Amino acid sequence: MNTQPIGVFDSGLGGLSVVCHLRRLLPQERIVYFGDTARVPYGIKSRPTVVNFALEAARFLLQFEPKLIVAACNTASALAIDDLRRGLSLPVVDVVEPGAQAAVRLAGGGGVAILGTEATIASCSYPAAIRVLAPELEVISRACPLFVPLVEEGRGCDDPIVKLTVETYLASLRGRGIRVAVLGCTHYPLLRAAIAAVLGPDVHIVESGRETSLAVQRVLTDAGSLCPAGRKGSMRCYVSDNPDRFRGIGSRFLDEQLEHVEFVPPEGYIASPLVQGEGR
Amino acid sequence: MNTQPIGVFDSGLGGLSVVCHLRRLLPQERIVYFGDTARVPYGIKSRPTVVNFALEAARFLLQFEPKLIVAACNTASALAIDDLRRGLSLPVVDVVEPGAQAAVRLAGGGGVAILGTEATIASCSYPAAIRVLAPELEVISRACPLFVPLVEEGRGCDDPIVKLTVETYLASLRGRGIRVAVLGCTHYPLLRAAIAAVLGPDVHIVESGRETSLAVQRVLTDAGSLCPAGRKGSMRCYVSDNPDRFRGIGSRFLDEQLEHVEFVPPEGYIASPLVQGEGR
Repeated sequence: MNTQPIGVFDSGLGGLSVVCHLRRLLPQERIVYFGDTARVPYGIKSRPTVVNFALEAARFLLQFEPKLIVAACNTASALAIDDLRRGLSLPVVDVVEPGAQAAVRLAGGGGVAILGTEATIASCSYPAAIRVLAPELEVISRACPLFVPLVEEGRGCDDPIVKLTVETYLASLRGRGIRVAVLGCTHYPLLRAAIAAVLGPDVHIVESGRETSLAVQRVLTDAGSLCPAGRKGSMRCYVSDNPDRFRGIGSRFLDEQLEHVEFVPPEGYIASPLVQGEGR
Repeated sequence: MNTQPIGVFDSGLGGLSVVCHLRRLLPQERIVYFGDTARVPYGIKSRPTVVNFALEAARFLLQFEPKLIVAACNTASALAIDDLRRGLSLPVVDVVEPGAQAAVRLAGGGGVAILGTEATIASCSYPAAIRVLAPELEVISRACPLFVPLVEEGRGCDDPIVKLTVETYLASLRGRGIRVAVLGCTHYPLLRAAIAAVLGPDVHIVESGRETSLAVQRVLTDAGSLCPAGRKGSMRCYVSDNPDRFRGIGSRFLDEQLEHVEFVPPEGYIASPLVQGEGR
């Protein structure tokens, strides 16, 4: 047993959809979350920049002595997971691998669609992770760059712009034997119903958040590091900008109110230029 | 006469729509541009963070010894112009004031609509600038958060999602006596035709870029600091991330190819934490 917290980071709000599942599955755990709202989004940025940001976010979390870190951002998982694992001496759970495993489990030999940000899709991380597990599966990738701003603006599945956008991105996937669609961005679960409506009832929808929380449970169980059941868990959030906006929009991602949201100034998470320079 | 360059900065690409007008009006000038593509967009971020980013961008440009700096970002102009002018000992031209002046000139006593990002609209900078010049004018503000991602994705005025989004944001402005609409974000000129179609032929559209380049011409003329006419101007761009993406999308904002686009690592523009701490 280990009562140290679970550290979770994301480029902004989206990772809260992972936290939502973590809280349900492991209510006894303490969660410390870092949202890099000063530099959000990561999905249109380059690999070196995303690696740099992800390492800074993870290093910020180290001060809370976490027993495990979750890279709850698909872009960071896709572009920076190797650097995170190399740079940290504790378990790092990403969102890509659990999502890929679920896709393979559910595909039954049919096709898999990966929906994600520009950077996640360009990285080919999901197809690569699936290829290792099931090289014969057909994988089709679709960048859906408007989904994040649509969610951030608070538009829901019944919104006409959302419906038209989902149709525009995904209509061409119909009739191609797709059995599984992976929501490869933590914002996308909020558009799940609209996505499911376009893809049809025969397509399984995989939410990385759910799969990732199961992966966290497995890792902590195997290591004997779960908190004692019955203990009251907690949730603290730290953001690099705009705690009020985070609190307002963030509650849409969770079943609970965000109580503790604290601003972190740049000197709290940006490595000094010297250290950054050494790291490259 | 003064052959030092004009410094221009923006959160990313959008400022190139200002540069487009500058290049046409003052082809003899050297322009040095900084696009903060690692931290784009500014429009959903808080005032302290935008002030911090804008000061870092401007300080980066100082190494080129510019004769004038243009804050070619509506959000930075709206939130950080006072800090920029206080912090720099050279003329700083923003995009809000020239846009507000043009709106007042063209309104003829009718209403003015301001279209901008969340942060620009929340700052009330345009209404405040207009109130100083013409306190009797009615000003209606509309945040249009999807316009930037629509442009960044390369969608044009004929795109069905663009048309529906413009209609959704702006339809309620019809029949309210609007005579002028200010495109209060440097991305919006690329959606000009779609915006004009919804607002109707009686509404003047003001592009901050055009007005700002005229303001730059005035300031340099008054100071006797224009480059000699007939001299060949130039354009160099520096970005905090992803020069290839900048080159690709950036050309849509300009009439010319982007020849020189150079990556600047974090240590090239981020003030040391100590200096940042002192500044607050």
